[in-house]
Amino acid sequence: MEKTIIRMKKGVELNKPILVVGLPGIGSVGKLVVEHLRKEFKAERFATLYSPHFPHQVMMRSDGGIKLVSNSFYYIKQKSGSHDLVILTGDVQAVTPEGQYEVNAKIIKFFKEVLKGTFVYTIGGYSEADAFVSKPRVFANATSKKVIAQFAGADVQFGKTKGAIWGSAGLLIAFAKMSKIDGICLMGETGLLDVDPAAAKAVLLVLSKKLGLKINTENLDKMIESTAKMLKELEQSTMFPESKEGQKPTYIR
Amino acid sequence: MEKTIIRMKKGVELNKPILVVGLPGIGSVGKLVVEHLRKEFKAERFATLYSPHFPHQVMMRSDGGIKLVSNSFYYIKQKSGSHDLVILTGDVQAVTPEGQYEVNAKIIKFFKEVLKGTFVYTIGGYSEADAFVSKPRVFANATSKKVIAQFAGADVQFGKTKGAIWGSAGLLIAFAKMSKIDGICLMGETGLLDVDPAAAKAVLLVLSKKLGLKINTENLDKMIESTAKMLKELEQSTMFPESKEGQKPTYIR
Amino acid sequence: MEKTIIRMKKGVELNKPILVVGLPGIGSVGKLVVEHLRKEFKAERFATLYSPHFPHQVMMRSDGGIKLVSNSFYYIKQKSGSHDLVILTGDVQAVTPEGQYEVNAKIIKFFKEVLKGTFVYTIGGYSEADAFVSKPRVFANATSKKVIAQFAGADVQFGKTKGAIWGSAGLLIAFAKMSKIDGICLMGETGLLDVDPAAAKAVLLVLSKKLGLKINTENLDKMIESTAKMLKELEQSTMFPESKEGQKPTYIR
Amino acid sequence: MEKTIIRMKKGVELNKPILVVGLPGIGSVGKLVVEHLRKEFKAERFATLYSPHFPHQVMMRSDGGIKLVSNSFYYIKQKSGSHDLVILTGDVQAVTPEGQYEVNAKIIKFFKEVLKGTFVYTIGGYSEADAFVSKPRVFANATSKKVIAQFAGADVQFGKTKGAIWGSAGLLIAFAKMSKIDGICLMGETGLLDVDPAAAKAVLLVLSKKLGLKINTENLDKMIESTAKMLKELEQSTMFPESKEGQKPTYIR
Repeated sequence: MEKTIIRMKKGVELNKPILVVGLPGIGSVGKLVVEHLRKEFKAERFATLYSPHFPHQVMMRSDGGIKLVSNSFYYIKQKSGSHDLVILTGDVQAVTPEGQYEVNAKIIKFFKEVLKGTFVYTIGGYSEADAFVSKPRVFANATSKKVIAQFAGADVQFGKTKGAIWGSAGLLIAFAKMSKIDGICLMGETGLLDVDPAAAKAVLLVLSKKLGLKINTENLDKMIESTAKMLKELEQSTMFPESKEGQKPTYIR
Repeated sequence: MEKTIIRMKKGVELNKPILVVGLPGIGSVGKLVVEHLRKEFKAERFATLYSPHFPHQVMMRSDGGIKLVSNSFYYIKQKSGSHDLVILTGDVQAVTPEGQYEVNAKIIKFFKEVLKGTFVYTIGGYSEADAFVSKPRVFANATSKKVIAQFAGADVQFGKTKGAIWGSAGLLIAFAKMSKIDGICLMGETGLLDVDPAAAKAVLLVLSKKLGLKINTENLDKMIESTAKMLKELEQSTMFPESKEGQKPTYIR
Repeated sequence: MEKTIIRMKKGVELNKPILVVGLPGIGSVGKLVVEHLRKEFKAERFATLYSPHFPHQVMMRSDGGIKLVSNSFYYIKQKSGSHDLVILTGDVQAVTPEGQYEVNAKIIKFFKEVLKGTFVYTIGGYSEADAFVSKPRVFANATSKKVIAQFAGADVQFGKTKGAIWGSAGLLIAFAKMSKIDGICLMGETGLLDVDPAAAKAVLLVLSKKLGLKINTENLDKMIESTAKMLKELEQSTMFPESKEGQKPTYIR
Repeated sequence: MEKTIIRMKKGVELNKPILVVGLPGIGSVGKLVVEHLRKEFKAERFATLYSPHFPHQVMMRSDGGIKLVSNSFYYIKQKSGSHDLVILTGDVQAVTPEGQYEVNAKIIKFFKEVLKGTFVYTIGGYSEADAFVSKPRVFANATSKKVIAQFAGADVQFGKTKGAIWGSAGLLIAFAKMSKIDGICLMGETGLLDVDPAAAKAVLLVLSKKLGLKINTENLDKMIESTAKMLKELEQSTMFPESKEGQKPTYIR
């Protein structure tokens, strides 16, 4: 395998699909969001992407099987006439710039030419400081002014972020734009955490509204609660002896 | 040389061969196992793989000659009607993800299309902790449920390992699976040691049973004994002054 | 996108253009110089270069939009019969040697074959020591003795520098020379600073004379002044308690 | 420039040439040796190799000119009927394994197919320990037993070295062997020094005998003397206060 390839099941027909992408990244926000959608709506896997630009590893499955690291496409059929949804998630991202360009260009080409897709959401995390974020905002950057206008009133903040979006979350909407497809990158505000369910929930609420999906966030609420509890315990532990209840804790990595 | 190449001797005819692969890796388990098979059964070299993805080095031979780093194929003829064995070993593995994909895809293509091979064993080490392992188990991950079932009663543990198999040990069985060839990765449990003969012996016993080979492990037994002696001396040395005989030693890297 | 590409607007006609290149580098001298030219002469963007050898990132725009990292070409029309100017600048340079060769070879091919260009200026910084430079000189290396002779009396020093020119500033004039196009690398002397407006001004004065451009350096003068003020404050601060006014400060990274 | 290229002057006719290669490496032995041959025999440059696998840099010349990093071929004509000599030297070696394979395969292909070459010498340094070597030996590894036999009595030691030969010194003779051309790697014994004229002289004496060249090593003798003087001064300096004259000094990096 010398090039990135996508293997697709036969017979899948989708109606002008919308792509929602969540791959490993900051605060695991993207992955939490799309895994939530995938499970909640029983999305069906229909295509797999393999690449020599992924790490050279094979995952051990708990049933004793194996799985070459990959990215997978799932679909969620919507009612007739509506845009179907396609979810893209996976174990890894490409490890080099050249690999990132090849893989992400391949995804957009597949989405446009094979799936006849119409819009791309990429989901990520955005971390301004290493402080715990209690009420995460959702930041966004989009491919056009038209898209920015469409998200007015969607509880999404444009132009508040600085710097660069690395990896698939950025390249996919940049390549979409080059291919005349609109898209947006939604970034849940996150801070201290490697896995941030509160940031994921904030993004899901935006998606829920824009995609017309009823999303049950109960399991995220439980994760948020247990994360908060864990942080509280940390705060009271001997590692932070001088912090007292009622004081606003500051976490420093 | 811009691509990986395999040079094969003319006139080699093999009967539906089974591949056994042991390359440099954790605890040198794979290399110990296949070097043992190679010597014990006087395997004959019949093909060599060179790759620009290997380190750019040439080995100095003790007779004053040279040897470009490579991987080599050897065969062990079995009695008529049985699967012949092919052994793959070598000095190195490819150094980049792209190189690993190219080299391992090439090996499976060669094994399937040229040698008409039927099954792939890859041998590695698996290290759960940095503690010395006195009775190493053999862990495994396989390409299908059928294979897992075939190894019932073979003193092999499925589903007890976590994480990823890196390099050829993983990619070869993943690419075999993609090419409709079954395979298994056998991992000898290892801990502290760079070269672990006990883990190698455990894997050899499994192979011996499954391949119907009588394997003399006397030389490994000697290595195990001398390794144990060396560890005992270390334990009593001034580097670990507080550990006493009878106490369970703990080794920390 | 697997190769470097250049997208050009239709209908742009240039007269035997001269290229002036300033990309990120030492003291940001190149970028300061060409951004100054670009703004002062209201240069018009007419072509964009994208490359898989650039970092895999997308810039967040302050209006909520996005921009794939790139290099851009701008033109400045000169009076009829004169050489037009083409400016090349951008966010980034290629990250690997192979990438640098591909991108810079592509630029020279485009400049020669599509734009029918005639001469290449690359602008960089040159740092001999980590000391603050109050009166920066302009060093240069050129593609031929003819060019060196043409710069006699231009307040440019040849043969005073040692070592290598890394990246586009060097490769572009080397590839130009291979394509029978002359060129020069102008290096503003710089020391301590990440962004050195005095070095940039020194180069601009040379360019102004050679290109027959009236360049207003007022904004650079302001930057130089505020930089000097900042350095003075640093000098008097507690970080350098023993240095006194009137003494020549020495800064050490 | 996406591939390694060799540009050759027209009209050069060589008689079954022998290649002598000295590129940057351990103790600069290879480079010292071939630069010595080049100057002493007024070798003429006739071909240049450029590669995107070299570092992306351009050398500043002391006359204000530039030079893209490269490897160059020079010839030394011998009396009619004898093998002509071709010298290969340069600023750099390729920076990645893939680059090393591409560049060195290209060199052997050019030497065999274009120059009709017959034998390859590569020159390097071999360092067993970080101690100063007063009477350097010459170690060697060769492509065949025939070559080893030809060097009997040439004051060259086979089979005394261990490990790997990295880079061009190793790959060139390995690729020569694959192309049915014989060759040898001569390694001057070196220790502490970045530039070791004594190791270079030892190799030159071997070459002188084997190639039938009268080589004047006066300038190397001067370098050896001044290096010895410098080492003596170091030894007596305050950095090594306890070492006394007459004692054997030990240098530790």
